[in-house]
Amino acid sequence: MSAQTLAIGLLLYPDLTQLDLTGPFEVFARAPGAQVHLIWKTREPVVSDRGMAILPSTTFEACPKLDVLCVPGGPGQIALMEDNDTLAFIRRKSAEVNLLTSVCTGSLVLGAAGLLQGRKATCHWGSLSQLALLGAEPVGERVVRDGNLITGAGVTSGIDFALSVVAALYGDEIAQAIQLQMEYDPAPPFDCGSPRVASAEQVARASAQAAGFIAKRLKATQKAALRLSNSACRS
Amino acid sequence: MSAQTLAIGLLLYPDLTQLDLTGPFEVFARAPGAQVHLIWKTREPVVSDRGMAILPSTTFEACPKLDVLCVPGGPGQIALMEDNDTLAFIRRKSAEVNLLTSVCTGSLVLGAAGLLQGRKATCHWGSLSQLALLGAEPVGERVVRDGNLITGAGVTSGIDFALSVVAALYGDEIAQAIQLQMEYDPAPPFDCGSPRVASAEQVARASAQAAGFIAKRLKATQKAALRLSNSACRS
Repeated sequence: MSAQTLAIGLLLYPDLTQLDLTGPFEVFARAPGAQVHLIWKTREPVVSDRGMAILPSTTFEACPKLDVLCVPGGPGQIALMEDNDTLAFIRRKSAEVNLLTSVCTGSLVLGAAGLLQGRKATCHWGSLSQLALLGAEPVGERVVRDGNLITGAGVTSGIDFALSVVAALYGDEIAQAIQLQMEYDPAPPFDCGSPRVASAEQVARASAQAAGFIAKRLKATQKAALRLSNSACRS
Repeated sequence: MSAQTLAIGLLLYPDLTQLDLTGPFEVFARAPGAQVHLIWKTREPVVSDRGMAILPSTTFEACPKLDVLCVPGGPGQIALMEDNDTLAFIRRKSAEVNLLTSVCTGSLVLGAAGLLQGRKATCHWGSLSQLALLGAEPVGERVVRDGNLITGAGVTSGIDFALSVVAALYGDEIAQAIQLQMEYDPAPPFDCGSPRVASAEQVARASAQAAGFIAKRLKATQKAALRLSNSACRS
């Protein structure tokens, strides 16, 4: 693996949360010589959960050998968890990459592909506990590394995550130069960006608002866990 | 202006820095009832400075009445500064919006449109001083408000900026809920994301690397300043 020719692939799928992908893309694309690929089944526009249409740059079939695969999150992850073509692509690529990675609920897709058994991983705070059903050890941190697996927590964590990935691949100096280029010296207007710092009332309100959707995601995670256990029994 | 039906427009132009747009998009699109538009001359895919292709959702001609206009930055801003169609569109919209806004070097485009005379504004740290040539008062802060003008600094500032815009339009509680949904509790791996905190050596290296491009941008800013002054003499 030469740092000059790294191929980094991001899965671009319907109903993803676009910032889970666009944050890391901006960081990765600034790494010297990196080729960043946006991968889906076809090269037709893919529409995010909130309506932004982005074009894939390659397909499962045409995708070159990757050094890094990253699966972002978002509501579309529920469909991916039982999409055999996507799970097979991720499994195939997981064998060739140097780093297997995810942002937000993308880690649940890695779990559904059977790739998180006994591994430490993170996820959006609202769905973190679901990782355990897929055999992972949930860790409530913003960026979690376990060997060749690096996972980021919810949405904006993707920027911290991607800088950590670049630091791991290219060294601190290049990651620091990118952080300065991107003026990443964050100053959030409020101190409420995770359950760690938000008020109990804010967390309760956010959880109540998301409850219906989280229950739907939980069902998909339970189904994926059942498929994993059945396939383990068969093998 | 009803908070339930706010129309927020982001200018999507060739060679923009996509995170300047995609960060704010993710925040704005979560505001209750907000309609977020990606605006360009045609609805053909627009390619960012680092190769991401995004589809506009409307055009200069078809764009509905906006409550907020946001101009992101990136190298393509140089061409915009002498693009009469774009400058005319921005001027026309500036008269109808409640908030005129920008991220990163998008503020230089607002300046080229003659909209920053005597106004406090910010920009990416590497080009901040150029604002003065366009009649603005450069302020080295991450988010700067001057009346109905809100500008954000470089790239990732767009997230802080957009949360501030949502707080201004919808109140703190809604902005805080969005910040928690997006798990925006940043933990950058390094403390070097602005000249304020980076080492002198890091800043010198970044400045040297960008010097050729910044000089090109400066020429465009000087030309825009000359056009503004000529048009002021004529009027």
